[in-house]
Amino acid sequence: MDFATILSHPQMGENIGASARAMKNCGLSDLRLVAPRDGWPNPAAEAMASGGADVLAGARVFATTAEATADLTLLVATTARQRSQTQQYMTPREAAAALVAHQNTGGRGGLLFGGERAGLTNDEVADANITVNVPLNPEFASLNLAQAVLLMGWECRMAWLEYQKNLGGDMLAENAPDAAATPATLDERAYFFDALEARLGAGGFFASPDMQPVIMRNIKGIFNKANLTSQEIQTLHGILKAIEKSAKKPK
Amino acid sequence: MDFATILSHPQMGENIGASARAMKNCGLSDLRLVAPRDGWPNPAAEAMASGGADVLAGARVFATTAEATADLTLLVATTARQRSQTQQYMTPREAAAALVAHQNTGGRGGLLFGGERAGLTNDEVADANITVNVPLNPEFASLNLAQAVLLMGWECRMAWLEYQKNLGGDMLAENAPDAAATPATLDERAYFFDALEARLGAGGFFASPDMQPVIMRNIKGIFNKANLTSQEIQTLHGILKAIEKSAKKPK
Repeated sequence: MDFATILSHPQMGENIGASARAMKNCGLSDLRLVAPRDGWPNPAAEAMASGGADVLAGARVFATTAEATADLTLLVATTARQRSQTQQYMTPREAAAALVAHQNTGGRGGLLFGGERAGLTNDEVADANITVNVPLNPEFASLNLAQAVLLMGWECRMAWLEYQKNLGGDMLAENAPDAAATPATLDERAYFFDALEARLGAGGFFASPDMQPVIMRNIKGIFNKANLTSQEIQTLHGILKAIEKSAKKPK
Repeated sequence: MDFATILSHPQMGENIGASARAMKNCGLSDLRLVAPRDGWPNPAAEAMASGGADVLAGARVFATTAEATADLTLLVATTARQRSQTQQYMTPREAAAALVAHQNTGGRGGLLFGGERAGLTNDEVADANITVNVPLNPEFASLNLAQAVLLMGWECRMAWLEYQKNLGGDMLAENAPDAAATPATLDERAYFFDALEARLGAGGFFASPDMQPVIMRNIKGIFNKANLTSQEIQTLHGILKAIEKSAKKPK
């Protein structure tokens, strides 16, 4: 997955750097700057880029938004402004899904962000296929530039991972635990529950024999909610034995 | 919708301020700080809070994470670390849905974030019900603190908006859990874990003192995956006593 990220007339270098970092977090690499206020390159941007330094180093500068977006086939504009009749509005999630679907049919998408002070012009918004309206707290919906980039980048990444997942992948696979999380079989669970029930019976836990099945079902519920692994069932057996040993110990 | 946002040992005031801003964007207001490095209040935080100044002004400071989370019933920890066997892992989207669902049954959820340098301790993660694994670019997955708060806050807001959107009918109302299903607080959970650990220690469960913290974290994982109710914690206490009674009985 990669979509162009276009910052139109960005002002503070710090925000450009933080945006590059957020892009890198989300697996985006194609940064395009339209007439950055303080020129380019900008040391203030480099200081904030952190792991996104390579994204920043690869940034391209354009004089106009039209030039910066010329090769794209689907443009998504992010704006905080009031909605109008003429644009196609989407939430970030819907727009991200549209971008991923578009790329999967061979298209080339881009995310367009306005500068800190003025945002996007009406013309820039009009050139976009989709205008994103972010449903934040209406009392304070203004996002910092890099926060807006992260939010859109994150939604694009999730949309892309969802797409991968539907192809049979695992979203968290890249950070998977190493082996052995074998889920317990119902047999293993039953063996533990039997051992527990025997001790509870001997310990007078069940007020009346009538209630015993109901109470045991509730107890099973406690453990079954946890989707226990085989290893965890072994641990629970060990816990039973240790409590018994503790009780038998002379005090 | 409101969930507690707990920043454990945050370092830079700027990041606390930017986190408060992100919370406000997402409609969150309950900010809790655990031992902020530079004391409190912090002018550097105020300078960055922007529209989130009221969130910052209402922040409460705690000495420990246990105190900051004592009243909560579902704790979600955000961590960049490798996944382990013992925790229940979710994507931010899944965790947000779980928080909203939990709140809709009367529970009180919280989002826990570690400090800039060290993140969360193993013990802090073990006390959480859910560990969030953010599927960012594996080449650079490290989020700035305020970016992490925005990402989780955004997912919570979207989950909540989705829920509102689906609310047309009373699909869930007729099937609401009864009063007995009050989720256990972290305080109640800690009380049970302490009781269990004492017995396990006396019973020789811990092969070596060195391993005791690791083993206890694994055991907490088993129970915390289950999102225990207060009633279930009571049941577990009863189970402990019954097993002891059973062991003491002459055979």
